[in-house]
Amino acid sequence: MSDRLQQQLDFLMEIDRLKSVNRQTLITDGTRRENTAEHSWHLAMFAMILAEHANESVDLFHVLTLCLVHDIVEIDAGDTFAYDTTAYSDKDEREQRAADRLFGLLPADQHARFRALWEEYEAMETPESRFANAVDRMQPAMLNHMVGELSTWREHGISRPQAVKRLSPIGDGSTRLWEHTQEVIAEAVRRGNLTES
Amino acid sequence: MSDRLQQQLDFLMEIDRLKSVNRQTLITDGTRRENTAEHSWHLAMFAMILAEHANESVDLFHVLTLCLVHDIVEIDAGDTFAYDTTAYSDKDEREQRAADRLFGLLPADQHARFRALWEEYEAMETPESRFANAVDRMQPAMLNHMVGELSTWREHGISRPQAVKRLSPIGDGSTRLWEHTQEVIAEAVRRGNLTES
Repeated sequence: MSDRLQQQLDFLMEIDRLKSVNRQTLITDGTRRENTAEHSWHLAMFAMILAEHANESVDLFHVLTLCLVHDIVEIDAGDTFAYDTTAYSDKDEREQRAADRLFGLLPADQHARFRALWEEYEAMETPESRFANAVDRMQPAMLNHMVGELSTWREHGISRPQAVKRLSPIGDGSTRLWEHTQEVIAEAVRRGNLTES
Repeated sequence: MSDRLQQQLDFLMEIDRLKSVNRQTLITDGTRRENTAEHSWHLAMFAMILAEHANESVDLFHVLTLCLVHDIVEIDAGDTFAYDTTAYSDKDEREQRAADRLFGLLPADQHARFRALWEEYEAMETPESRFANAVDRMQPAMLNHMVGELSTWREHGISRPQAVKRLSPIGDGSTRLWEHTQEVIAEAVRRGNLTES
């Protein structure tokens, strides 16, 4: 086997570990936490189905690649809970090291391409990264909505202002989806799954 | 909320159940079986990384959509183990009913588009569906290779001729990947994870 194919397969076997990185959010039947690999698939499906609601014209292929690739760094860096401000303080440094090691398993051209995708997602300066980020924030809100009293919002005592701060960037990618998410937040407050303040 | 967005979100919440459909294959650390949602993400990553090895020029965006969508029918139809010839006898009928119900949750235009993607994958008459099918068959072979003695090949007493029959369509999508898979099969026979005959 060529070195190139060996490097590609080594990377593909290494990223299997994303299936063992657990997020805070529960899946919709409430039986367990979601892992980051299945979350990445769900995100890509959100993007495919909801692309028409993006504020700007987006290249959907490019959005899909961002959805599929941007969380791979969590294999080394772990998932950082959206409302954990302490863990967020060194998130960048942990994720930079993870990107070096993980994408570094690939042949040089693919290493550069995948690292660029991850950096584009993080910078949020392109229409595609803004829309991918919008669905990435909307998806756990929808799962929290589905599981109701089991939501991680309730589990961690999250407030309406915290949720609004976390989720309002959805509007940078899609005004329509942010409008809907605000209805979800209002309903969660009514049901006591988010505190008022 | 518009009916259209409601239908789209209903579909996206319903397909969350793909995270609870278990396949036979174990993830690489051997701790549990893989579910179909995370498998679909892994497949899409295989396609992104290995597209250069396709026999024919493929539209990678189209390949990704096939990888992400084609297993959604398993929510109703279940995963059919590749070597279970009895279950395969009514697989088509179960999956047609599943496609009707699941894609039928979407607005009519998206229902038609997603159903067409699933049918294209099943028919395997386009370069994109042949390549998506190649990585769909190669990925569990690579996981079986990684877990060695825990492989479902060994668990179910699968033979080399059974594996060759199941996996040889990889060559229709990529001669290079089929060459490599044949090396994986030979190694599995040497280690006793596949029986000789």
